[in-house]
Amino acid sequence: MNENKPDLIHLARACKSASRTMAELSPKNKNRLLHTIADSLLAEKEEILRANEADLSAGHSKGLTGAMLDRLRLDQERLSVMSAAIREISRLPDPVGEITDMVTRPSGISVGRMRIPLGVIAMIYEARPNVTSDAAALCLKAGNSVILRGGSEAFNSNKAIEEAISKALVAEGVPPESVTLIPTNDRSAIKDLLSLEKYIDLVIPRGGEGLIRYVAENSRIPVIMHYKGVCHMFADESADQEMAERILLDGKTSRPGVCNALETLLIHKNAADRLLPVLSSALLKNGVEIRGCPQVCRKVPEALPADDSDWEAEYLSLTLAVKIVDTLEDAIEHIRRFGSDHTEVIVTNDLKNASRFMRAVDSSVVMVNASSRFSDGGEFGLGAEIGISTSKLHSYGPMGIKALTTRKFIVYGQGETRHPV
Amino acid sequence: MNENKPDLIHLARACKSASRTMAELSPKNKNRLLHTIADSLLAEKEEILRANEADLSAGHSKGLTGAMLDRLRLDQERLSVMSAAIREISRLPDPVGEITDMVTRPSGISVGRMRIPLGVIAMIYEARPNVTSDAAALCLKAGNSVILRGGSEAFNSNKAIEEAISKALVAEGVPPESVTLIPTNDRSAIKDLLSLEKYIDLVIPRGGEGLIRYVAENSRIPVIMHYKGVCHMFADESADQEMAERILLDGKTSRPGVCNALETLLIHKNAADRLLPVLSSALLKNGVEIRGCPQVCRKVPEALPADDSDWEAEYLSLTLAVKIVDTLEDAIEHIRRFGSDHTEVIVTNDLKNASRFMRAVDSSVVMVNASSRFSDGGEFGLGAEIGISTSKLHSYGPMGIKALTTRKFIVYGQGETRHPV
Repeated sequence: MNENKPDLIHLARACKSASRTMAELSPKNKNRLLHTIADSLLAEKEEILRANEADLSAGHSKGLTGAMLDRLRLDQERLSVMSAAIREISRLPDPVGEITDMVTRPSGISVGRMRIPLGVIAMIYEARPNVTSDAAALCLKAGNSVILRGGSEAFNSNKAIEEAISKALVAEGVPPESVTLIPTNDRSAIKDLLSLEKYIDLVIPRGGEGLIRYVAENSRIPVIMHYKGVCHMFADESADQEMAERILLDGKTSRPGVCNALETLLIHKNAADRLLPVLSSALLKNGVEIRGCPQVCRKVPEALPADDSDWEAEYLSLTLAVKIVDTLEDAIEHIRRFGSDHTEVIVTNDLKNASRFMRAVDSSVVMVNASSRFSDGGEFGLGAEIGISTSKLHSYGPMGIKALTTRKFIVYGQGETRHPV
Repeated sequence: MNENKPDLIHLARACKSASRTMAELSPKNKNRLLHTIADSLLAEKEEILRANEADLSAGHSKGLTGAMLDRLRLDQERLSVMSAAIREISRLPDPVGEITDMVTRPSGISVGRMRIPLGVIAMIYEARPNVTSDAAALCLKAGNSVILRGGSEAFNSNKAIEEAISKALVAEGVPPESVTLIPTNDRSAIKDLLSLEKYIDLVIPRGGEGLIRYVAENSRIPVIMHYKGVCHMFADESADQEMAERILLDGKTSRPGVCNALETLLIHKNAADRLLPVLSSALLKNGVEIRGCPQVCRKVPEALPADDSDWEAEYLSLTLAVKIVDTLEDAIEHIRRFGSDHTEVIVTNDLKNASRFMRAVDSSVVMVNASSRFSDGGEFGLGAEIGISTSKLHSYGPMGIKALTTRKFIVYGQGETRHPV
C-alpha cells in the first residue's frame, strides 16, 4: 500500500462527485466558466510566471536541454496564447445533449441517442505547462471533470495554473475539484491513479513512448493512446511529379518534429526513374538526410543505406527513409508492417489505386493527394485537439471534444410493453 | 511461463492475419459465407449433437443443475434456430465502408470518416453453445476475425460448432483461422489470451459477474463489459396508474431472468397512497415477492423488509425491491448510488420531470413511459445484439454490429499542402 493512495482515492472521489455538476452545467454557464478561467490565467500572471521561474531554474540545475527548457518556459505572450485558446474552446459547439438517430420502432417506442459526458478524465502528460489549461478547458467544455498529472519538471507551473483555474471555478460556483492536479511528483502516484477505475472513466497519456507504454500496461481504466507517428507517403506509378514534390516537402520539412510529419517515402518502381531524381534533389536541397533501400542508394549517391530500424523510425528530424516498391500491394504491406496507424498518403492519378489504398490501409487517417501535415483536429474541423488516437476503440485519429463524450440510448413511449400485459 | 502460451500466440497471430482477408471481403461474399456457415451447421448436425451429448453426460456427472443442463442442451430445433440466426445476420446492412461526415475544409481538402472493422475480437463466454455461432457470425459480418473461448461445460459442443464453421470458411476460400476456438479448457489460457494486445483488438466477456470482473482486471486489451442489470422504474407523482401497472408487470414478470428485467421500483411519496395498493396487489397476484423500505412495509403487509443489499441486487427472479422516495431528485440519487448503468424508466405525465430524468440519469438506456424490457438491440433496430455495454467507452448500451467496427478519417485533396511549398 502506498501512503499516497488514500489521498488519491479521496481526490478522485471528489472529482467524480464534481463531474455531476459539470455534466449538468448549461452551455451558457460552461462558456462563462471558460471565459472566467481565461481571465484568471491573465490575472494570476505573476504567480504563474514566478512558479515557472522556479521550474526553469530547477531544470537548469538538473541539466535539461535547451529545447526542453524552451518547452517548459512561460512568458507574457505564451500565457496570452493559453488564455486565448480557452476562449477559442468556449466557442466550439457544445457536444452535450445532442440527440441523433431518433426513429420510431414497430413497437411504437421512439429510440434515439443522446450525447453525454464521459465523467472523469485523467490526463497524464509531460513537460509543456500549456497542456494543463488546454486539457482542462477541453474536458470541461465536454461536461467532464479532469484529473491532471503533469511532468515533474513543470510541477510548480502546473500548480500555479491549477490554482488560477480553481479560483475561476469557485467564482462561478462550480466545485473546484472539477479540475484536480495530483499534488505530488511521486511517480508511484501514476500507478495508483491507474487503479481507480471506480472513479475515473478514461485515461489519456500524452508524451514519450515510455510514458504511454507504462500507462497502457498498468491501467485498469480504459486508455486512449497515441504511440507515435510513422507516417508514409506512397508515390504511385501515375503520381504527378510536382504534386508529389509539394506534398513530400510539406510533409517532411514544414515541421519535422511533429507526429504528422512524414518519416518514410515509398516509390513505385515504374515511377522511380521519373520521380526519384527530382524528389531526392528537392529533399537534399532542403537539408534532408536520405536513408535508402539498396535501389535508392544506387540511384542517389548522397543516400545512406537504411536498415530495418529505419523503416519503423519516428525521426522527428530532417531524415527520411526512402524505399522503392514493386507494386501498390507491396506499399500497403510495408505500411502494415512498419506503420504506426497514424497517417498515410498516396499520391496518384489512378482512381482504382486511390480506392484500393483508401480501403486497404487501416491507419487512423488515410489520404489521397494531400499532405500528412493536415492530420490534425483543427484542420479537420474538430476544433481544438486533445490528442491523436492510434488505437481503434472509442476514437481513432484526431480527437476533438466529441471524443470526450459518449452516447446513451433514450426511449420515449406511451406506455408500451414488450409483451401483452 | 505457461506452456500453452506459445500456441496461443501462434493462434492469435494467424487470426490477426486472417482478419486482413475478412476486412476486404465484399458484402456479397461475406453474406454468401454466412449462408454457407448456416448450411454447414445443419449438415454437421449429427457431429454437433453427438458432441453435445458428451457435454451433457459430463455435466450430469459433475452435478450441473437442471437449468444449466437445459442451457447447455442442443437439439434439432435449437440448431435450426442457430442456423436461422446466422441467415438473419447476413441480412443486416453491411457496416463496413460506410462514409459519413464528408466536408470540404477551408484548406481545400475533403475530410470524412469511413467505417472499418476492428480486426480481431475475442469473445469469452459461459455455457450456451449458441453464443459460438452467433458471435462468430456477428464478428464476421462486421469484417472481423474472432477468437472464441467458451465455457468448459460446452467444450465439445463448441468444438463441433467451430469445425462446422471451419468447413464453411474453407469452402468459401476464407482462412479458417478467421474463427478460432481456444483448444483447451485450461482456465489459465484466459489470462494468457488477455495479454495478447498485439493481436487482439477487443475483448467482450459475456457471463457471470465473476468472469467479467476477472477479464476486466486482467486484460491489457480493451474490454467492453456488461456487469449486470439492476434496472429501475420510477413512478413519478403524475404517473398514470394503468400505465405504471402495465410497465411494471412487463418489466418484472414477463421474463424475470434477463438483464433488462426490473429489479427496483421507486415511487414518489405523493403518489404512494394512490399507486402503491394497486401496484403491490398486481405484483403479489403475479407471484412477485416484495422487499420494501419501512414505509412500504407499513402499507403492504405482505412485503418483507429490504436491507441495503436489496437495493443493489440483480434478483433475476420474481422478487422486487420497492422504495418510496420524497422527490424526483431522490429517485435520481438512488439510481446513481445503486444502479448498474443498464436501463432506467420514469413513468410520468410531467414534461419537466421527464426531461430532468432523461438528462440527469446517465445509464446506458433511459426511458420515459416504456418498459425496460425494450432495452435490446433487436427492439432498438440494431439487428442482432452482441451484448449490452454498461461501460461508457466506445459503445454504451445494446451493441449491434456497428459496435464491432470503428471509423478512420479519410482525406481527398488535389495536392494541397498545409504550408506554402
